[in-house]
Amino acid sequence: MSARLKLIVSYDGAGLAGWQSQAHRNTIQDHLERAFQRVTRNRLRVHGAGRTDAGVHALAQCAHVDLADRRLSSSQWIAALNANLPPTIRVMRCAYVPRSFHARHSARAKIYRYRIWSAKILPPLEFERAWHIATPFDLVSVKAAAKKFVGKHDFAGFAANRGKPAENTIRTIRSVRVRQKGSCITIDFEGNGFLYKMVRLMMGAIVQCGLGKLDLDELTLRLNSGQPGAARYVAPAGGLFLIRVRY
Amino acid sequence: MSARLKLIVSYDGAGLAGWQSQAHRNTIQDHLERAFQRVTRNRLRVHGAGRTDAGVHALAQCAHVDLADRRLSSSQWIAALNANLPPTIRVMRCAYVPRSFHARHSARAKIYRYRIWSAKILPPLEFERAWHIATPFDLVSVKAAAKKFVGKHDFAGFAANRGKPAENTIRTIRSVRVRQKGSCITIDFEGNGFLYKMVRLMMGAIVQCGLGKLDLDELTLRLNSGQPGAARYVAPAGGLFLIRVRY
Repeated sequence: MSARLKLIVSYDGAGLAGWQSQAHRNTIQDHLERAFQRVTRNRLRVHGAGRTDAGVHALAQCAHVDLADRRLSSSQWIAALNANLPPTIRVMRCAYVPRSFHARHSARAKIYRYRIWSAKILPPLEFERAWHIATPFDLVSVKAAAKKFVGKHDFAGFAANRGKPAENTIRTIRSVRVRQKGSCITIDFEGNGFLYKMVRLMMGAIVQCGLGKLDLDELTLRLNSGQPGAARYVAPAGGLFLIRVRY
Repeated sequence: MSARLKLIVSYDGAGLAGWQSQAHRNTIQDHLERAFQRVTRNRLRVHGAGRTDAGVHALAQCAHVDLADRRLSSSQWIAALNANLPPTIRVMRCAYVPRSFHARHSARAKIYRYRIWSAKILPPLEFERAWHIATPFDLVSVKAAAKKFVGKHDFAGFAANRGKPAENTIRTIRSVRVRQKGSCITIDFEGNGFLYKMVRLMMGAIVQCGLGKLDLDELTLRLNSGQPGAARYVAPAGGLFLIRVRY
């Protein structure tokens, strides 16, 4: 009897080429499909909740895969997959789910976290895990800019064009939470969906506001216009973490 | 006028071959000496407070170097050195110090931290930054074992032989602090000095106690005997962090 298996996957994106399968095969999807092939001797397709770019991390990415049978229990799957994955990718949890569950289509919301390190020097253990901003900036402006994104908007102005002009670019950001702990500023975005590079483009604009190089009115204008506008800033991949996918 | 410069250095030890200069030149000392050579055009010797092994991290290692002059200010030194170092090694602070200061000889105490990750699966972002122990263990025994090391002892039983039999192996551990936060157990050791691999050998024994494979009496016996004794366990390098050197 065939079965659908749901996976919760965590990864350190620093040495990986992102989620989506590529010719060189150093992506999370490739590593997972290779692990399934080693265990089952079959080529299976792993469906992720969404793609993350090269360098982006995940605490709990979600994926599903269709298996020919239930020969292994979910805990046996965890052990078998992790034994065939590099230590920078781990299957944290596994569960058999009904056929109606789909990692991407069933996702109701995602939470992304972006980390900024605001200090003259970036500590080595934060390298590729935070955006280092050595220039002092105004946290009040950062918070005000971040809050502007809450709500339902046409995020065309905050998406990288993937050559899909017909794509629906309306998304709803349910909450944005800004916290500071010492030199580390953490911004959590919860939304019903995110366009390509959307969090990094929002973060680029938010930091421009904090540095006084973009004012809130311009940001609001770009958000309301649904147009990319002038020069845009893409925050570095290393600061971005996919925290959770809600179903 | 010649001058002595004190450096506070932080590093992610994962991709480095330890502190001490080696032929292949991928050590922290080598990287620092190369950075000084690029800036001054002279070969200078960097003296560290102590050697850390391959894979061991540091939040604040200390070192000093003798310069021909004070042409650069301490903040100019920080910028010049960091511009010539890989991002996994950073000079966090710099200060001119009197000739009487010596990074190794003047050190009064050091604080080392050891991190254990106690869970079935090691999260990828903890890889090479904690000792993954998948078997449940008894934290009360770990604490009791750790406390046994406090005081003045002959630590010959907890040192790797470097072919120096005449070395004085008496050291004083001033405090050991065990904390737990979720799956992470942190043990801080403050002592007036540490022998080669001493923290990792103490940690090996402490974890053996936690797993019920070594009892407190055997540990005390080994500590009092000053003899290596039977099978010893060296905790992995990735869990060890040099936190601070006190002067």
